[in-house]
Amino acid sequence: MSWTKIMECVPNFSEGRDLEKIDKIVNPFRSKEGVKLLDYSNDIDHNRLVVTVVGQPEALKEAVIEAIGIAVQLIDLNHHQGQHPRMGAADVVPFIPIKGCTMDDAIALSREVGATVAERYNLPVFLYEKSASAPHRENLAAVRKGEFEGMAEKIKLPEWHPDFGPAERHPTAGTVAIGARMPLVAYNINLDTPSLEIAHGIAKKIRFIGGGLRYCKAMGVELKERGITQVSINMTDYTKTALYQAMEMVRFEARRYGVNVVGSEIIGLVPMAALIDTSAYYLGLENFSMQQVLEARIME
Amino acid sequence: MSWTKIMECVPNFSEGRDLEKIDKIVNPFRSKEGVKLLDYSNDIDHNRLVVTVVGQPEALKEAVIEAIGIAVQLIDLNHHQGQHPRMGAADVVPFIPIKGCTMDDAIALSREVGATVAERYNLPVFLYEKSASAPHRENLAAVRKGEFEGMAEKIKLPEWHPDFGPAERHPTAGTVAIGARMPLVAYNINLDTPSLEIAHGIAKKIRFIGGGLRYCKAMGVELKERGITQVSINMTDYTKTALYQAMEMVRFEARRYGVNVVGSEIIGLVPMAALIDTSAYYLGLENFSMQQVLEARIME
Repeated sequence: MSWTKIMECVPNFSEGRDLEKIDKIVNPFRSKEGVKLLDYSNDIDHNRLVVTVVGQPEALKEAVIEAIGIAVQLIDLNHHQGQHPRMGAADVVPFIPIKGCTMDDAIALSREVGATVAERYNLPVFLYEKSASAPHRENLAAVRKGEFEGMAEKIKLPEWHPDFGPAERHPTAGTVAIGARMPLVAYNINLDTPSLEIAHGIAKKIRFIGGGLRYCKAMGVELKERGITQVSINMTDYTKTALYQAMEMVRFEARRYGVNVVGSEIIGLVPMAALIDTSAYYLGLENFSMQQVLEARIME
Repeated sequence: MSWTKIMECVPNFSEGRDLEKIDKIVNPFRSKEGVKLLDYSNDIDHNRLVVTVVGQPEALKEAVIEAIGIAVQLIDLNHHQGQHPRMGAADVVPFIPIKGCTMDDAIALSREVGATVAERYNLPVFLYEKSASAPHRENLAAVRKGEFEGMAEKIKLPEWHPDFGPAERHPTAGTVAIGARMPLVAYNINLDTPSLEIAHGIAKKIRFIGGGLRYCKAMGVELKERGITQVSINMTDYTKTALYQAMEMVRFEARRYGVNVVGSEIIGLVPMAALIDTSAYYLGLENFSMQQVLEARIME
């Protein structure tokens, strides 16, 4: 049972339509010791495949390297059309520390994978987010700007020299961004107002760029069929900015408009600790340790 | 990683002093495939050993049978003194369904263990709690009344015939109670009053026997060094009576006395779901599923 270290990886591949190819790309994550495929979903409009996998770092590393190799072999970006921006067959590969490993471990792992795939597949690799070698490479959108087509020239600029591999776009597989980041929690808070202006006004006050919470991105969204709106939030580091902080802050900002919170929702996966931390806040738990959580002990 | 089914067992043995014997009794739970020893603690005054172990049902069953055998061999109740009531070398053995298994599975497992230890060690077995064969055998205190000494005669009464094994007390190892129950959560809520009367008054209103919550036992306790009191609670089925219900009920009962809740604490282990459920309540989560919890997915 014991995986003392758990790393997550959410690789994105530029193939959302050909189920046979998708199956081959996902295959390295199946029935492998030390690797557990949690989810994969392909989007036809985006023409993109998103895989969610966890594993022991070494086993996960090997599986990710293998999957990138298969994607490089099967996907030709010259013939790729889709709504989602993309620059490579394996487009972006983030590593996320979950348990028993640190951000530094995730950065080290991303560098090892980058070095290996560059050499083995002759693929240019950009390190991004926490793994970035320079501040202008942290943001994925900045790295990917110009996409596959533009990368032919962009990669030759000194400031866009890849971190690993040749300074030349792979003819069919393009380039890949590999990096490390914290788990994201997609968290939406519903308001009893149909006013998008109010929802967005609240979002602007609670988000980092508006002077709000350090690890919080937010925007207003309409839920037309329900006649209400929501503050749609991305929590970028739940260990530092907690879910309950976003909730309580939306609650007190909403008061300004005479608006109330009517519920909230978590989209996709959430680490247990994000919810337990929130529970500990509302119960006012004293001297609580995650070591008291049965499942945390079982997973040790 | 995958344990699709997880059962917990918290066997209590009547040896809290001889570390060599304790080590031998605990040993079957160590480094065994499919079994994970979470905790064990011996109390010298109680002269008692409490083991907390989880495992896949079959593997756990074998380990528990082995440990009971060792306790029967090593412990002589004729020479046992301690503050805690006891009737056997292995005194009480509850099985607790944790994941992927039901109360019925736990009951079935308790019966299998009971039948095996009765036959193998010539040990009389009482099924108790959810496994009880009659209502008067559900409560452990009722089964154990008279303890080792009194059991010599009690076991001959028709209404106290054991469920398995001979209707005769084992000469040195006595008798054992084996059963199934839900996980207990020990949860205390602190009040800003030194009045034990108030704490106990609140406890009486929230607990089942006083007309309160179905799966809640409670009493008032003084925290003398802090000059406050607490409502000390045992949640006997957190899947039906939630932690937040106890908290909110203590809060509104405390208002009657002009008293406030100043915090709470969880003693020992707590299943992840008990805290996540509470978090979901306070955040007003819509459409939330435990399948969204990363660790729940990893443990699948």
